[in-house]
Formats: sequence, C-alpha cells, structure tokens
Amino acid sequence: MRGKGIFPKSLLAKLIYWIFASMSDIKTTTIDQLGEFGLIDHLTRRFKLSNPTSSKGIGDDAAVIRPNGKQVIVSTDLLVEGVHFDLMYTPLRHLGYKAIVVNLSDIYAMNATPKQVTVSIAISSRFTVEAMDEIYEGIFHACQVYGVDLVGGDTTSSLKGLVISVTAIGEADEDKIVYRNGAKEGNLVCVTGDLGAAYLGLQILEREKRLFLEDPQIQPELDDQKYLVGRQLKPEARREIIEYFNDINLKPTAMMDLSDGLSSDMLHICSQSGVGCELHESRIPISEDAYDQALKFNMDPITCALNGGEDYELLFTIESEDETKIASHPYISVIGQITAKEEGSVLLTKGGNKHRLTAQGWKHF
Amino acid sequence: MRGKGIFPKSLLAKLIYWIFASMSDIKTTTIDQLGEFGLIDHLTRRFKLSNPTSSKGIGDDAAVIRPNGKQVIVSTDLLVEGVHFDLMYTPLRHLGYKAIVVNLSDIYAMNATPKQVTVSIAISSRFTVEAMDEIYEGIFHACQVYGVDLVGGDTTSSLKGLVISVTAIGEADEDKIVYRNGAKEGNLVCVTGDLGAAYLGLQILEREKRLFLEDPQIQPELDDQKYLVGRQLKPEARREIIEYFNDINLKPTAMMDLSDGLSSDMLHICSQSGVGCELHESRIPISEDAYDQALKFNMDPITCALNGGEDYELLFTIESEDETKIASHPYISVIGQITAKEEGSVLLTKGGNKHRLTAQGWKHF
Repeated sequence: MRGKGIFPKSLLAKLIYWIFASMSDIKTTTIDQLGEFGLIDHLTRRFKLSNPTSSKGIGDDAAVIRPNGKQVIVSTDLLVEGVHFDLMYTPLRHLGYKAIVVNLSDIYAMNATPKQVTVSIAISSRFTVEAMDEIYEGIFHACQVYGVDLVGGDTTSSLKGLVISVTAIGEADEDKIVYRNGAKEGNLVCVTGDLGAAYLGLQILEREKRLFLEDPQIQPELDDQKYLVGRQLKPEARREIIEYFNDINLKPTAMMDLSDGLSSDMLHICSQSGVGCELHESRIPISEDAYDQALKFNMDPITCALNGGEDYELLFTIESEDETKIASHPYISVIGQITAKEEGSVLLTKGGNKHRLTAQGWKHF
Repeated sequence: MRGKGIFPKSLLAKLIYWIFASMSDIKTTTIDQLGEFGLIDHLTRRFKLSNPTSSKGIGDDAAVIRPNGKQVIVSTDLLVEGVHFDLMYTPLRHLGYKAIVVNLSDIYAMNATPKQVTVSIAISSRFTVEAMDEIYEGIFHACQVYGVDLVGGDTTSSLKGLVISVTAIGEADEDKIVYRNGAKEGNLVCVTGDLGAAYLGLQILEREKRLFLEDPQIQPELDDQKYLVGRQLKPEARREIIEYFNDINLKPTAMMDLSDGLSSDMLHICSQSGVGCELHESRIPISEDAYDQALKFNMDPITCALNGGEDYELLFTIESEDETKIASHPYISVIGQITAKEEGSVLLTKGGNKHRLTAQGWKHF
C-alpha cells in the first residue's frame, strides 16, 4: 500500500535505506573541517590489514603486496554519479558496498580470490564527512564480508558529483585462472543464480523516483520488492561458487561475470573463444519476483534476463563430462551449449524458433 | 614578446601544445559512433604487452600479473578536471602523460620499478574520439618511456568534465622497499633535481589564462618559459635515480616523492619516522628560471620551493656514511639532517634564524 507522509526530496534514498537497515543519527561536518589528510585518517582508521599477503596498506606512497608464488589479478572500475548510480534513490552505504562488490566479482570471474582493494573518491563540497562515513561504512562492510583489505586510495574534491574508482587485487595459482577465450564446441553453458532481477529493481527505483518527484508526499512502496531492489542496490559477488569449484576440483573452460547482460556477455565469450552457442529460453533462470514484476511492467521476462545488466552472476562453460559435478548445485543452471562458430550465437525459444543473440547491454555513451 | 593573433578561446591549450610538439590534423568523431567496446578497442589497439610479468592485459574481466617472487607495489590516483587540471591550458596529450607519470613516481618512491598501469577515464559527451586519442597518445608515450604495460581500465561517460583514475603496479625485492618511516637521527636529508618550478609554471599558465580571457587576441608569451611550464604540464618521474641507487647499492632509510611540497612531505617523513629535521635554506635547489620568475611575481623563491607542489622529485634520507656515494651525483642535493623528535622540524635560514616547517601543500578541499 502506498501511504502518505512528509518526505523532503533529499530523503528518498534515506527512506530506501531505512527499509534495509537501521538509521544512524544525522550530524553534519564539512570536509574542510578535517582537511584531506584528516579525512583519510578519519575514514580509514577502522580498516586493519587481515590478509598475510597485505604487507603495507594505507599511509605510504604505495601499498605492498606479498604474492607468495601466486599470480596477481587486477581489475578496476569507475563509478560516476548520474551515469552508474542516482543518489536520489541509492543509499550511500549501499553504494560503497556495491562499488567494492562489482570489482570483486571481476576477480572471482577469473577463478581467483580477491585480497586487496584500493578506493579513490572524488566528491563535491555538498558532501559532508557524515556522507563520506556512510560510503566507507559500506566499503568496510564489503571488505569484512569478502575478506579483503583496503590498502590504498585517493580522496579529492570534484567540481560536481561523486566519482568512485575501485581497483581490486586478487590471487590465483597460474593453472587455475579461467579466461574468456577457452570455450570449446560441445561445452555446456552455465549461469549462477537468476537473471534480470537487478534490472527490474532499477525500473522500480526509477518509477519511485518519478512518483516522488511528482508528489513528495507519497511514501515509496518497496516493502514487498526487497528482493528486486536489493539485487540492484546491494548485489553480491559469487564467492561461494569459486570456492565450490575449488572444492569439487572443477575448472570452467571460460568464465566472466554478468555485468552487461547475458546476451552481450555470452557474445564476448563466443567471440573471444571463436565459437558459437545455443541457449535455451526455457532453461534461463528467472526468479518468481522478477517474472511477476516484468509482466506488471508489460515487459518480456526473458528480455529482462537477456539484456538487463548488473546481475553479477557468473557465466561459464564446462566440459560436458563435468555436468554431473554441478548437476546437484542449487544455484547453477545449465542453459545451453557451445557450438561451432559458423552456427552463430542463438537463443532457442520455447516455441522452437531460433533468435540471434544481440549485444544490447548497457550503453554509457 | 606578446604578439597579436586570432585565437578562439578553446585554442589556448592547443597553442601551448604547439609550443611543445607538432600539431595533428583536426577531425571530429563522436564517441557514440564507436560505442563503448569500440572505443576501448580503438584506444588500446597500439598497446602491446612488453614486460614478461604482464601475463594478461586488456580484454578479460581482470589483468593477470606474474610476480616471479617479487613484492607487488600498488599506487592509485584520481585526477579531476577543474581540481587537478584546467583544460583551458592543459593539452590533452600532456595530461595523459602526466596522469601516468605521477603514479609511476609513487612506485619509484618505494624504491620499486613500475611494470603495469590501469587507466579508467570518465568523459562528458563534449569530448570527441580525437580528444580521447590525444589523451591516449600521451598515455602511450609515457608507457613507452617508462617501460610499463597498460593492462586494464574502464571507459565511461560523465555528466560533466573529465576524470582520470590511474593505478600503477610495480615490483621490488622485499629487502629493497623503502618506506616513509625509516628516517633515523643523524641521517642526511636529500632531494633530487630542483624545487618550485612546477608551481611557478602553474602561476605562468594561470596568468596566461587570465590575459587570454580578458583579450583572446593576445598570443601567449611562453617560449622563454618552456622549463617552468614544462615542469607543470609534463613532469617526469625519477626512474634514473632508483636505477642509480641499485647500481651503487644504496638503500635510503626513508623516501617519498614530492607532490604536496617539500615542507608538507618532509613533515610526513618526520611524523612517520618519529624524528625531527633541520633543513638549510641555502642548500635547497632552485633553478635559475624558477628563482627569476619568483622574483618577477614578487614571490619568495624559497617559499615556492617549500610549498609549491607537483615537482615529483624524490625526497629521501640516507645514513651519513653513505654521503660519499651520492656526493658526485649532479641531481642529488643534501639539504639537511634528521634530528631528535623534540627538536622539531625546522628550516635554518640564510640569516641564521630557525623557522618551523608547516604543511601548506595542496589543499583540494
């Protein structure tokens, strides 16, 4: 039920935050009260190094990592306000959490284990120390959940808006690393979890934003959409799947994480591996929440699953004889097989038709 | 001589670029003509991996580095238009070069050797593909000069302005790494090169910007100030000093690079090492160009050297018995000594007075 209440415009994100967690006190400290070095100390004082490979963290010209014979895996992402996130409905704490998680997801997608992150943030003067604290609260939480150390970064001002740059550093044995280019004809195509939910969560938040801008008295209706909204605002990386691969001694032939959408990302694997693929519409995992919400929005659920981005699930291919190893796993679905390049990359619909996969994905330009 | 000419406002940076290099043809291609993946391919096609430790570069979820028993050193920086650079007078090619160099400087400051970089760029729609090419031309040049590989990154749009995030990755033997916290009483304080020039170069560029905005017909007067302007727009990192340390088997006790200014950075070493210092005004190296220009601006040259930032020289401390090893080096000056913490951090002036060092440095907030 959509209720009535008094909610100033700037509070939509706080409201959404209330739904997911308890609210902290509202204080305001301007950043120049602390200065750049004071701010860095303030924000990072709680972060202690926990990984033995993290030899030197924040406080010198650079961080020092002891790889101990492992390969070092490095991934980096830049998140820009107004492009990758809308602060109207993104709680800062979730933003900090998500900024870390999406980078860790890239490390897991190499079949590697993230160990360190660096975080650089540019903020305009409208942000207070308390706002930065919220972002770092999310960063801290993500570091704890995934067992990574914050080892460096940069904090500076921006003329406008918030920019977050995260570099994640991981480790792997050389023979365990999985690239995008190893898929072979006859391999099975698998995904983890379910697809399209993050995209539908985004559509819900965009709808709430529109309604809120039209009438700020209207209270957001989100309680029964926690799953979809949560998938958008606070995604998780598939750490447990990588650990499972290790436990059952399974090495995928190719792997990547789903950030742009299944179609677009599958095409990356196919083009880099020089193969084609056939995906089965009926096998693509879609949650009940996502399915119902897509229909409410007059959208095709399968289109949301194929082209919606930011699910951060793993897309991977395995030798067909390894199918038994993953058959009983509750979060892994076999959705198709790798074919010869000449057969193209297609979706076999429930009606028996073949559709060419196209890269729609996210366009930031 | 200040000449007259027809120079539309947007061309000041191009003019400055002409002074340093030849001009390329002016073409314009919008970024959405290429799309995100097309743009990345276009920008990075010339970059080949040259270091044996660079195992996998651009094109997967993450880069892979083979450390071969070395420690891995990681540093990151965020450069924001309007805060760290002004595109009115900063040629994009020099900006790309500088973005890399300032990060490599942090790696050298650990007595390590940079091997890889990742570069993430956010740009607004006013930038063309040709503008991005200019930035990447500078990045490419820096990678070639310093022997580092571009192994990853992210390219996205911004609502406003240009943001560049660079992460540099280096290597070092564990026992060679030099931190900020190793300075001991009796150590000598050394700097490379000369100080204050980058700050004075910035003042010249700011003056030219003001004059240009008042009267765009006025041609900039920069030919005889190439050294100072060059130190600001196209700084170099002190790679050869680190190689020299290795050749003569000298390990500084503490080291950092001069980005915030001698006073501020010296205080970092003193506080982290738990010591004081006494610097001698008469020994602080200032170029003739910087000295003369400071006087023209009615500034104190020593103040420019102490508080001007962005020189990217190395500040380091050595055991006093190592003095003979560096005495003959043309680009190393001994400027003082480390004292007990209780004696504070002071500058001994030419007149024999003692002044406390204060951290003015760069304030981005």
